[in-house]
Amino acid sequence: MKQVSERQLERFPIYLKYLLSMRDSGYKTISSPVIANALSFSEEQVRKDLQVVSSNNGKPKLGRDINELIEDIKAFLHYDNLTKAAVVGVGHLGKALMNYKGFNDFGLDIVCGFDIDSNLVGSQVNGKDIYSVYQLSNKIDELGLEIAILAVPLSAAQDNADRLVNAGIKGIWNFVPVHLNVGDDVVIENINMASSFAILQHKLSNKEKN
Amino acid sequence: MKQVSERQLERFPIYLKYLLSMRDSGYKTISSPVIANALSFSEEQVRKDLQVVSSNNGKPKLGRDINELIEDIKAFLHYDNLTKAAVVGVGHLGKALMNYKGFNDFGLDIVCGFDIDSNLVGSQVNGKDIYSVYQLSNKIDELGLEIAILAVPLSAAQDNADRLVNAGIKGIWNFVPVHLNVGDDVVIENINMASSFAILQHKLSNKEKN
Repeated sequence: MKQVSERQLERFPIYLKYLLSMRDSGYKTISSPVIANALSFSEEQVRKDLQVVSSNNGKPKLGRDINELIEDIKAFLHYDNLTKAAVVGVGHLGKALMNYKGFNDFGLDIVCGFDIDSNLVGSQVNGKDIYSVYQLSNKIDELGLEIAILAVPLSAAQDNADRLVNAGIKGIWNFVPVHLNVGDDVVIENINMASSFAILQHKLSNKEKN
Repeated sequence: MKQVSERQLERFPIYLKYLLSMRDSGYKTISSPVIANALSFSEEQVRKDLQVVSSNNGKPKLGRDINELIEDIKAFLHYDNLTKAAVVGVGHLGKALMNYKGFNDFGLDIVCGFDIDSNLVGSQVNGKDIYSVYQLSNKIDELGLEIAILAVPLSAAQDNADRLVNAGIKGIWNFVPVHLNVGDDVVIENINMASSFAILQHKLSNKEKN
C-alpha cells in the first residue's frame, strides 16, 4: 500500500460519506471530476487519493464503480473491524460521546465508560456500564478494550492518561484541550476544539478586513 | 502582522494552556527550548511561532516574560472579545456543547440554542434559551450572534447550513461529519471526528505492524 499523509487520511471519511449518499441516490458509477467538484477538492487530489485505496481506476467517461470504491475505502479505513473503546470521564461531553450514534459507522464501538465519581459508577449511559477508573486494568483485559476516549476535566487529563498507559492502553483519542505526555509506544490523537475555533476566528477576522 | 498558517494557528491555544499552567506553578519567565521540550515541538518551530505574536524576544538565558507572552497570545487569538455563538441542533452533542465550561476560556460565548423540535423550543439548557430554527433571522439580529455551531443530524446538515447562511450567519463551526456547500463569503471550520479517528486508527495499525 502507498504511503499516505494525515491530510489525505482525513479526506477518506469525507469521500465515503459522499459516495454513500450518491449510492443512496441511485448512482452506480462516478468520476473523479464529479467528486472533486462536489467536495471542493482539486481533481488531481481526488485522483491521487483514490489511487491509494484502489488499483482499479475505472473506465474513461464512465468513471469508477461506486460500490467497489465504497468497499475499498471501508477496508482501507478498517471499518470492517469494530475497534472497542471506552469513554474515560463521563461528564457532559463523555455522556454525549456515549450517546452518539455515528461512531459505529466509522468502525468505533464504545463498550463502556469509566469515571471516578462513585455516584456514576454502577449506572449506565445509553445501555453501557460505567465502571470505576480503579477497575481500568481488569476491564481492559476482560472487555478487550483497544482505545480510550479521554473526556475528563483539564486538570485530571495527564493523571488519567498515565493511568490508561499503565493499564495497557495503546491508543488515546483525546478530547481534552491539553498536550499529553506519553511514551513513544502509545498513539495519541487530539480533538482540539480550541485550535479549531482559533482557525475559524482567524478566517472570520481576515474576511472582515477585506 | 506576519502571515500565519493554520498549522501554526492550531498551536497557539496549546502554548497558551501550557503557559497558564506554568504561571500557576509560579514561573515568571520561560525560554523557547523549555516550551519546545514540554510540548514536543521543535525549538525552531516554537521560536518562529512566538515571533508571530510578540516582537519582544526576551533576554538571553532568562527567556521571555510569561505574563507578557500570555497577553500577546490572548490578543492574537482575540480572546479579549467574546464571540457570540448559538448551538443549532440541541441533541446529545448540542447539549454537551451548551454545557461545556471551557469555551469562555477561548473567547467563545454560547448565548442560546436552536432546534426544530417543538418539545425543546421554550426550554433551557445550562440556563440558555432554546429557540425554534424558524426564529433564526430575528434572533441573530436581536442577540448579535456572530457564529453558529452546527450539531444537527447528518441528514439535516446542509438544509440547516443554508438556513443559517440565509439568516445572515458568516461563520459556521461544523460538528457534523459532512462537507457543507456554502458561498465564498461564509467561513466553515469542521470538527471532523471521523477523520480524526481515521488518523488514530491508522497510526495504531502502523504501530502493530512494526
